[in-house]
Amino acid sequence: MDISARSMLLCLDDYEVTARELLNKAAYEYIASGAADEKTLKANRAAFDEIEILPQVLVDVSSIDTSRTIFGRKHDYPILLAPTGYHRLFHERGEIESVYGANRSNTTLIASTFSTVSFEAMQRASAAPLWFQLYMQRDRGFTRELVRRVTEAGCEAICLTVDLAVNSPRDRELRAGFELPAGMVRENLIDMGRETASAAHSGGVGMLYNQVRAPNVTWKDVEWLRDELTIPLLLKGVLRPEDAETARQLGCDGVIVSNHGGRALDGVPSTMSMLPKIADKVGGSLALFLDGGIRRGTDVFAALAMGADAVMVGRSYLYALAVDGAEGIERMMAILKTEFEMAMGLAGCTALSTIERAMLQMRPAR
Amino acid sequence: MDISARSMLLCLDDYEVTARELLNKAAYEYIASGAADEKTLKANRAAFDEIEILPQVLVDVSSIDTSRTIFGRKHDYPILLAPTGYHRLFHERGEIESVYGANRSNTTLIASTFSTVSFEAMQRASAAPLWFQLYMQRDRGFTRELVRRVTEAGCEAICLTVDLAVNSPRDRELRAGFELPAGMVRENLIDMGRETASAAHSGGVGMLYNQVRAPNVTWKDVEWLRDELTIPLLLKGVLRPEDAETARQLGCDGVIVSNHGGRALDGVPSTMSMLPKIADKVGGSLALFLDGGIRRGTDVFAALAMGADAVMVGRSYLYALAVDGAEGIERMMAILKTEFEMAMGLAGCTALSTIERAMLQMRPAR
Amino acid sequence: MDISARSMLLCLDDYEVTARELLNKAAYEYIASGAADEKTLKANRAAFDEIEILPQVLVDVSSIDTSRTIFGRKHDYPILLAPTGYHRLFHERGEIESVYGANRSNTTLIASTFSTVSFEAMQRASAAPLWFQLYMQRDRGFTRELVRRVTEAGCEAICLTVDLAVNSPRDRELRAGFELPAGMVRENLIDMGRETASAAHSGGVGMLYNQVRAPNVTWKDVEWLRDELTIPLLLKGVLRPEDAETARQLGCDGVIVSNHGGRALDGVPSTMSMLPKIADKVGGSLALFLDGGIRRGTDVFAALAMGADAVMVGRSYLYALAVDGAEGIERMMAILKTEFEMAMGLAGCTALSTIERAMLQMRPAR
Amino acid sequence: MDISARSMLLCLDDYEVTARELLNKAAYEYIASGAADEKTLKANRAAFDEIEILPQVLVDVSSIDTSRTIFGRKHDYPILLAPTGYHRLFHERGEIESVYGANRSNTTLIASTFSTVSFEAMQRASAAPLWFQLYMQRDRGFTRELVRRVTEAGCEAICLTVDLAVNSPRDRELRAGFELPAGMVRENLIDMGRETASAAHSGGVGMLYNQVRAPNVTWKDVEWLRDELTIPLLLKGVLRPEDAETARQLGCDGVIVSNHGGRALDGVPSTMSMLPKIADKVGGSLALFLDGGIRRGTDVFAALAMGADAVMVGRSYLYALAVDGAEGIERMMAILKTEFEMAMGLAGCTALSTIERAMLQMRPAR
Repeated sequence: MDISARSMLLCLDDYEVTARELLNKAAYEYIASGAADEKTLKANRAAFDEIEILPQVLVDVSSIDTSRTIFGRKHDYPILLAPTGYHRLFHERGEIESVYGANRSNTTLIASTFSTVSFEAMQRASAAPLWFQLYMQRDRGFTRELVRRVTEAGCEAICLTVDLAVNSPRDRELRAGFELPAGMVRENLIDMGRETASAAHSGGVGMLYNQVRAPNVTWKDVEWLRDELTIPLLLKGVLRPEDAETARQLGCDGVIVSNHGGRALDGVPSTMSMLPKIADKVGGSLALFLDGGIRRGTDVFAALAMGADAVMVGRSYLYALAVDGAEGIERMMAILKTEFEMAMGLAGCTALSTIERAMLQMRPAR
Repeated sequence: MDISARSMLLCLDDYEVTARELLNKAAYEYIASGAADEKTLKANRAAFDEIEILPQVLVDVSSIDTSRTIFGRKHDYPILLAPTGYHRLFHERGEIESVYGANRSNTTLIASTFSTVSFEAMQRASAAPLWFQLYMQRDRGFTRELVRRVTEAGCEAICLTVDLAVNSPRDRELRAGFELPAGMVRENLIDMGRETASAAHSGGVGMLYNQVRAPNVTWKDVEWLRDELTIPLLLKGVLRPEDAETARQLGCDGVIVSNHGGRALDGVPSTMSMLPKIADKVGGSLALFLDGGIRRGTDVFAALAMGADAVMVGRSYLYALAVDGAEGIERMMAILKTEFEMAMGLAGCTALSTIERAMLQMRPAR
Repeated sequence: MDISARSMLLCLDDYEVTARELLNKAAYEYIASGAADEKTLKANRAAFDEIEILPQVLVDVSSIDTSRTIFGRKHDYPILLAPTGYHRLFHERGEIESVYGANRSNTTLIASTFSTVSFEAMQRASAAPLWFQLYMQRDRGFTRELVRRVTEAGCEAICLTVDLAVNSPRDRELRAGFELPAGMVRENLIDMGRETASAAHSGGVGMLYNQVRAPNVTWKDVEWLRDELTIPLLLKGVLRPEDAETARQLGCDGVIVSNHGGRALDGVPSTMSMLPKIADKVGGSLALFLDGGIRRGTDVFAALAMGADAVMVGRSYLYALAVDGAEGIERMMAILKTEFEMAMGLAGCTALSTIERAMLQMRPAR
Repeated sequence: MDISARSMLLCLDDYEVTARELLNKAAYEYIASGAADEKTLKANRAAFDEIEILPQVLVDVSSIDTSRTIFGRKHDYPILLAPTGYHRLFHERGEIESVYGANRSNTTLIASTFSTVSFEAMQRASAAPLWFQLYMQRDRGFTRELVRRVTEAGCEAICLTVDLAVNSPRDRELRAGFELPAGMVRENLIDMGRETASAAHSGGVGMLYNQVRAPNVTWKDVEWLRDELTIPLLLKGVLRPEDAETARQLGCDGVIVSNHGGRALDGVPSTMSMLPKIADKVGGSLALFLDGGIRRGTDVFAALAMGADAVMVGRSYLYALAVDGAEGIERMMAILKTEFEMAMGLAGCTALSTIERAMLQMRPAR
């Protein structure tokens, strides 16, 4: 990518626009789309538009500290890269390139069960520990082995996805004919057989259950997994405060307030509308993360003010990966970080701990 | 219809788009249009967009039971086919093809007084009992005879329409020049004479009263009809809780919360906004149905959570009939059923009885 | 106008669409436009969209009485024709043709001070008494003489306009270059001199005061006028309940809740939002009228339910006049009347007195 | 500009449309754009659309007094020209022409630190005293000297900007390639060196701090400045009532409720939504001003009713400057003033003191 084109990438949405031009339609739609009518996809973004920040003036902001320690390791910014699948669709080196991008921006990447490069290879390529997103399989023995492998490879935390027990209607994805090209497989599932490992994961008419995601995962499995693990366990996909509370009681280390980026059940609430209720219930005793719709530094600010310890960015780094590889991810993250610092500086905050819910107000209804 | 075109029909709205291309304008407008400015037509859909489902995670959903017993007969899904008129406009075999579609999808069809095939012929063609939608005529003797005929033919229940005592302004229909083609008649009304039976039913400027729908039907007539019948009686077109309560007191068996799909009085509330109020009044003692705007599995879920025992789908199956006959209806219903199962599975419900109003919340106002 | 084109005029908005094609731009813009950003113009319409009618079913509506007695004379429908200016712009016979249209539809027309035919000529042409809309002039003697003339000619009531003490910013009108063509004058003002009588009445940059409308009219003038008159006096352009109450105390006979069709101060509330507050204050003791945004029978129904004794239609009959002369007005009114009857019949009302506020509810906020 | 083109400039927005045609893209975008997604830019305007004015009728408005005394000097209208930068981009004589425009319309202009003509030259050209907008520099000595210079030159008041401690994301401006052309410098900063004085002031990716605006300004600096000054001190960019209260306690003379026209932190509340809260806190004891989104006379009316002593207009006079120089500013102001008088007259107000909050109501939510 030439320098002048790169210099015109000024905000996260610019990466989407450019990626749309570069990617084939199926790959673009895979990233961009949500389930069904995309009500939740839009609600995630709309929720940020409804929040106003009330800035404090005449604070000395000549030094701003954006760092946060998570599970004992200091992160420069309260921003992580959410688990997403099939990176080889977006860059020839796939998840390896994403690891490079994460490293260059000093950001923690959460590897997906559905990566097109094995977790071990990703962790080997990485200068920093990765996290791993886990779909539990019907064969719990397979899951146990998978978890053992990634832990051994150096994984720092496990994020168990709990919001996709059955398939969801992915109309746009199906319409675009999304499927894995020949030669691309979900490397972490290769022991299930090549066919299973390479099957496109979206359902179709009448396809309720998914081959590689168990529909019968319950809190008992969480307890079992918790006992298996030597590293932190997070639940990804929690929207109800009661479920966050149960996670806390069962000894989980964190919760990711998520609706799968609007790709699971369409019509569920935006993550930002549920975050404060979950924070009121378990904030302080569980690490709290939010994903879904983060596009601006002010979004990061709002999520932290509502009680998140950190946020996760998903689609934006895939677009950046497609546009400019590791360098794309680095610049995309630099934009977001600078915007976040601007939000802190202009709101009169010099450390994450000073970002409080009282600085927000809901926009007056129209 | 070739297989690849069929495989691109992924949601109910796809059938509308395709039907619009295939049908002549008058026939399409007859299905699609509502009265006047279509405020109520839009409100029916918008009401679903305002409802959020709060999903429960980590429930074992490896088995989901979607069945419900209605008037003593088990229905696989809480979804019925609403009464609609003039099917021969949409398929050469008319209502007979619709019966085939209903049978193939194991769904109960409600035949209309304004069918272009007689109820007897429909019931003969059907492997399962049909219901019958009744417009009461000025000549109550005619109505008594009609009801006797359909009951004798095997009809399982009568739905008396009560929301169209006079005509409504059907501008779009009139603009498109909708009328019955030569040779097509309302077969159930043939004894009224060929002219009456084939007259287009919409009014025009100054046409307040309708030839074949009595404007003087009152609760007395409901009592009379109730006494005439040996099968269940439902009132179709109730929006006020007080009217549902009167129906209950007079011994009706069910109420269909309906605004005639936005085709009667424009400006009345959406059915979904009135359903919970009606359920609070008569839920449990009357069978409750809702129609108007059902397009997604999550819509079915929301209606049940708000108190409906089952929902009715109207326009969507006419589009499917036009696009692909009985096979169209079968696939359209398969899509809706799968989506409904996905909604249940992703929300953590394994039986209809577990779908509760507490799982819903209203979307935050913009 | 040929019969088939006429038969495609199905609702009031159709007359606007057709008039727009037929009229020169300045004339069309004069009718259609509001002041400034047209916030109030749009609010008038939007207010109706926010009101829902809750219909009562199973009422015998085989006979519907839409009549109302106003100032001792029975009106078939609670609908009048609002005062509007310059009819010769829209039809070669001008206000005479409007009188014919009003007579054909058995509707009371309110003549404007700014008519292009004198009130006396209008009243002579009319089979029924007219009302007269009055702008008070700086020269109160002129006003006294004007009022005397119209009363003598047979005028039934005087509507004093009180919402246009100074000019308003009529950007669209000015942009379209609206002015009276040569030879067209405000005949009622001819005694002020030809130049004054033919000057376009809209202001421009820096033109705060109007030549023929006094800026110093106060409640004292209302008392004076009240004493001068032998016929009913109404105030037109009242939005505040307190002002309606003062009108009552000073012996006015009626109030027209109006914002000059959004042509006076832009940003004032819709008439429908203020009507119920005014009805609560003075309803029953003053005749209450509403104009602004009436386009459908359900709008008339809603206004009556909110407390109006009758409504006034303005722009729609000018469009009808332009499209089809007296016959246009007759058909336009027939459409509106039938729609109103449909609204009554479908809502379960058989007389105006049964239209109550309890039948309305506000649409749920989005 | 020829007279007929000028006569078609009927409202403030017309100047924007015309300026957009005349200016190069970078210059236009510099004026028009806000930060990031422009949520606050839009909110400023939207807030006015949500406010309704309830007009009082039958008041004698044949004489309307729009004057207000501010810091001892009588202003004909409660409208000032907000500080804006780089006028030579819009007119060859730059700020000198703006001064002429301000003088012709008898309006006070607030000169910007970022003017392309020195304050001294501006004040020399002006028939009336100017105000000066101040960015505090890292080098407080420079600031002291700057303040001394402008005071000596005749400046009447100092407005210290407090809402831009760090840069904001100015995507549109960066995208348009905005920078100062060769030969154009910020004359007031020339002593910092030519390079600094001519550097475009917007940031870019990673550019958090600004070369010429100090990030470490605190209330201590306000106290220091207060002590330095012999003329009134206002804080510009206050949105929180608490900050306005602190300003009062520290002896400031006024507060400008502003969000930098939506150019600082995107997502902060509209100025109109915060004004009444600030007025409740400090109204009466501090001079209160509002900027952001003023385009109509009714906007001025609403701001005054909400508690502002006067408003400031920014973008509109730059458009007018670009379109027609001093004559443009004069006519633009004449339009706004007439509209304001119309608002007063039509609402029944004859002096600023009679414009009260009770005359406003919030538009009903949709």
